[in-house]
Amino acid sequence: MNKKKIYVVGIGPGAYEQMTMRAANALEQCDVIVGYTVYVELVREHFAGKRFLTTPMKKEVDRCILAFEEAAKGSTVAMICSGDAGVYGMSGLMLEIGKEYPDIQVEVIPGVTAANGGAAVLGAPLIHDFAVISLSDLLTPWEKIEKRLLMASEADFVICLYNPSSKKRHDYLEKACDLMMRHKSPDTVCGIVSNIGREGESCRVMTLKELQKTQVDMFTTVYVGNSQTKEIDGKMVTPRGYVHG
Amino acid sequence: MNKKKIYVVGIGPGAYEQMTMRAANALEQCDVIVGYTVYVELVREHFAGKRFLTTPMKKEVDRCILAFEEAAKGSTVAMICSGDAGVYGMSGLMLEIGKEYPDIQVEVIPGVTAANGGAAVLGAPLIHDFAVISLSDLLTPWEKIEKRLLMASEADFVICLYNPSSKKRHDYLEKACDLMMRHKSPDTVCGIVSNIGREGESCRVMTLKELQKTQVDMFTTVYVGNSQTKEIDGKMVTPRGYVHG
Repeated sequence: MNKKKIYVVGIGPGAYEQMTMRAANALEQCDVIVGYTVYVELVREHFAGKRFLTTPMKKEVDRCILAFEEAAKGSTVAMICSGDAGVYGMSGLMLEIGKEYPDIQVEVIPGVTAANGGAAVLGAPLIHDFAVISLSDLLTPWEKIEKRLLMASEADFVICLYNPSSKKRHDYLEKACDLMMRHKSPDTVCGIVSNIGREGESCRVMTLKELQKTQVDMFTTVYVGNSQTKEIDGKMVTPRGYVHG
Repeated sequence: MNKKKIYVVGIGPGAYEQMTMRAANALEQCDVIVGYTVYVELVREHFAGKRFLTTPMKKEVDRCILAFEEAAKGSTVAMICSGDAGVYGMSGLMLEIGKEYPDIQVEVIPGVTAANGGAAVLGAPLIHDFAVISLSDLLTPWEKIEKRLLMASEADFVICLYNPSSKKRHDYLEKACDLMMRHKSPDTVCGIVSNIGREGESCRVMTLKELQKTQVDMFTTVYVGNSQTKEIDGKMVTPRGYVHG
């Protein structure tokens, strides 16, 4: 018996051509594409004839159930996420909710997450060991985030911050910079990238001290270098190691 | 004046269709494709008529110079890397060596790195904050790696290990597990994936205690969960947060 199938697809950071061919092929094979309204608009024109179902932000559980119910009725379904579905994305929730739908198989198709997409715009900040931390305390206690910022800084990781700001959390990046400066030099090379792979893409390289005074929005990804990271011709570059190789 | 151009392209984890469309388009536009022998073989058949130049492992600096010299002669050149060129890849070295070639522009095109490619095979291990650590001490002092393993464990990051083993470093994963168990429970859910996106792809979910006794090779990527990571129907799944959302 062929199991019914749902694809959970990372569409990459923005533009259609940042999607893998495997992702595009999976969407081609689907009858129904489910996603957060904004992401569906990014791909809609490339997949004419599909049925598109959208739910707003913070309705993630509803969105998953919608996808499974469509698949249960016999449609081939794709749930799309921006970036990679496995980084602060929907693949985990889909597998959790999938327990209730044992005859539907979930296949996760990876994409380029914002950390990697933004790194390419800035230069090469993530060449060496790095930590990815979300500053959103919606589902994570702030104390946990604080501990991660401190320990990742003390261990000299390059740090990539997701969700660095929102209307309610306008001073979180400043607080995070304060914490990181307990272990990282204020002159550490940092970078920010906004609207990765989309219209209005922009980036800036600066020091950690400058980053602390910088306002960013929720479409920005932030990079804080390790002790070896340097600026080369306006690019943020982390060397391969601690010995010149 | 149009600057001469080199693309540094992440081809994703293995098979051709794991490449983004942007990456494939860039390779189409090139005259010359430069890379480590093994990666060139993965794409060669899809780009007939190109000139392919390869250098063996550990000849990274030579490979970069080869690419710049070809571009200086007037060819459009792509340097390819498996996964993402910005994660333990060639984009950093290309930007460093690029200082010597001021009239050649380097454009980095991101790809799906092994961390994300393998995560999709295992389920959803990287849904929450994570740290990526290479166990190779070729260019990094082991004490630095040790400190990162300890602090990332203490801060309850999901940890993804690159280069977990090699002929000379057959016991490094065991040593790393010992260190992580100082702060993580021996029952922490872990996973390994081999040959991501290639022939012979395989994965296994196990506990940290079991991982410690497991032999892996250099084509394996290793995932160590956080305190919330669970096994669901044979998949490794990290929840979105610490509160049930």
